[in-house]
Amino acid sequence: MDQSSLSGHYLEKYNEELETLRRRVLNMGNLVERQVANAVKALTTADTALADEVIQEDVRVNSMEVAIDEHCSEILARHQPAASDLRFILAIIKTITDLERIGDQAERVARMALHLAEKDRPRNQYGDVQALGDKVTQLVHNAVDAFARLDVDAAVATAREDVNVDRDYEAVMRQHITFMMEDPRTISRALDVVWAIRALERVGDHSRNMCEYVIYLVRGKDVRHISLDEMEQVARGAEPEGESQ
Amino acid sequence: MDQSSLSGHYLEKYNEELETLRRRVLNMGNLVERQVANAVKALTTADTALADEVIQEDVRVNSMEVAIDEHCSEILARHQPAASDLRFILAIIKTITDLERIGDQAERVARMALHLAEKDRPRNQYGDVQALGDKVTQLVHNAVDAFARLDVDAAVATAREDVNVDRDYEAVMRQHITFMMEDPRTISRALDVVWAIRALERVGDHSRNMCEYVIYLVRGKDVRHISLDEMEQVARGAEPEGESQ
Repeated sequence: MDQSSLSGHYLEKYNEELETLRRRVLNMGNLVERQVANAVKALTTADTALADEVIQEDVRVNSMEVAIDEHCSEILARHQPAASDLRFILAIIKTITDLERIGDQAERVARMALHLAEKDRPRNQYGDVQALGDKVTQLVHNAVDAFARLDVDAAVATAREDVNVDRDYEAVMRQHITFMMEDPRTISRALDVVWAIRALERVGDHSRNMCEYVIYLVRGKDVRHISLDEMEQVARGAEPEGESQ
Repeated sequence: MDQSSLSGHYLEKYNEELETLRRRVLNMGNLVERQVANAVKALTTADTALADEVIQEDVRVNSMEVAIDEHCSEILARHQPAASDLRFILAIIKTITDLERIGDQAERVARMALHLAEKDRPRNQYGDVQALGDKVTQLVHNAVDAFARLDVDAAVATAREDVNVDRDYEAVMRQHITFMMEDPRTISRALDVVWAIRALERVGDHSRNMCEYVIYLVRGKDVRHISLDEMEQVARGAEPEGESQ
């Protein structure tokens, strides 16, 4: 085997390894999305078996995080990637931290589902929580999808969508605080609901973080802690205006 | 200059760079610790000027995170560190994510301080919140210190201490929920307190995460998602018992 086919072989192995890594992140993303959807469903339908399942499955989410992290370290040590490959690895290291924490929030919602299953249900049958949960699940889905396709436009659109989710969250929260004040006997139940919707809001934040890593990966610029409009400029490939000052 | 002094020079520069990086993380850790302490003080003494200061300073925490992250990428690309140096960089990338999120929680407490400054104070003058806040601040301090000294024993002790903080948190939380139920007119105030102490509990969790990275850095083993006893075995340099199965 001559030198060039040896390095060709090496390159092929390396690319395969990156592709395996990418697929592992997508699998973790899909599992976490399902965890959120199931946790919300368990709460709104008082399905304690499903809530238990979500709590059990969180162990799998955790071990996926540890395994992917190890895989990233191995690739860094073995192949010493540079430029966009290095960003790819760094973006994954951050992405799986957020995915793992989304998993924790799903588990939290599932625990509240167990508490709430024993209590009277409100007249709206948690329709507002289900609606918020559906939007948040979609956000996770879109963030994972933006990563899968390295689609910066989808990443910006998803980050923007998180603003709407925050607004919905505020409204649902206010509603449940009002219930609490009107009928103090419902305080205990309302607090469980409050913790659950708070967890859903955090899932939205983690999804937005993942979108920021997609833009970092593709454009090579860190877009955390800047406005959505500046983020959009970076995603389009332009310098954000504030930066030249 | 001969070859060996050239590589000696390179090594010296490289070690200096790692030391600079380490110092930057410690500076960020010190700032974040101060942010937590100030946020708690602002809440318990109704000091709105101090609360405003904490909110402003969070911008500095955020920009430290971005700058240190960039520094880590540069070192990875330029020096392609291996073994313990690689773990050092990876541990820092994770540590600063937790530090930044502790900063966010401090900001959250400061915002609650602003709300609460306009409301009547409870009879205990938030003594319970101050006590919890002091313990949490100490936890941040100890976690940063364990990182500074690469002290695995201190890391384990701090992770154990977080269990006590969680117990205190539960007690303070129950107390404020009781206030709420006994006098529904205090619901609005009690909820602000509830958000603040919840944020403090999260600070404890992030401190524990940092301790886990210290053990990973020194021992080369990922100790997330395992029990404290298993963590202690790894810190001592022994295999955790479950692992051989």
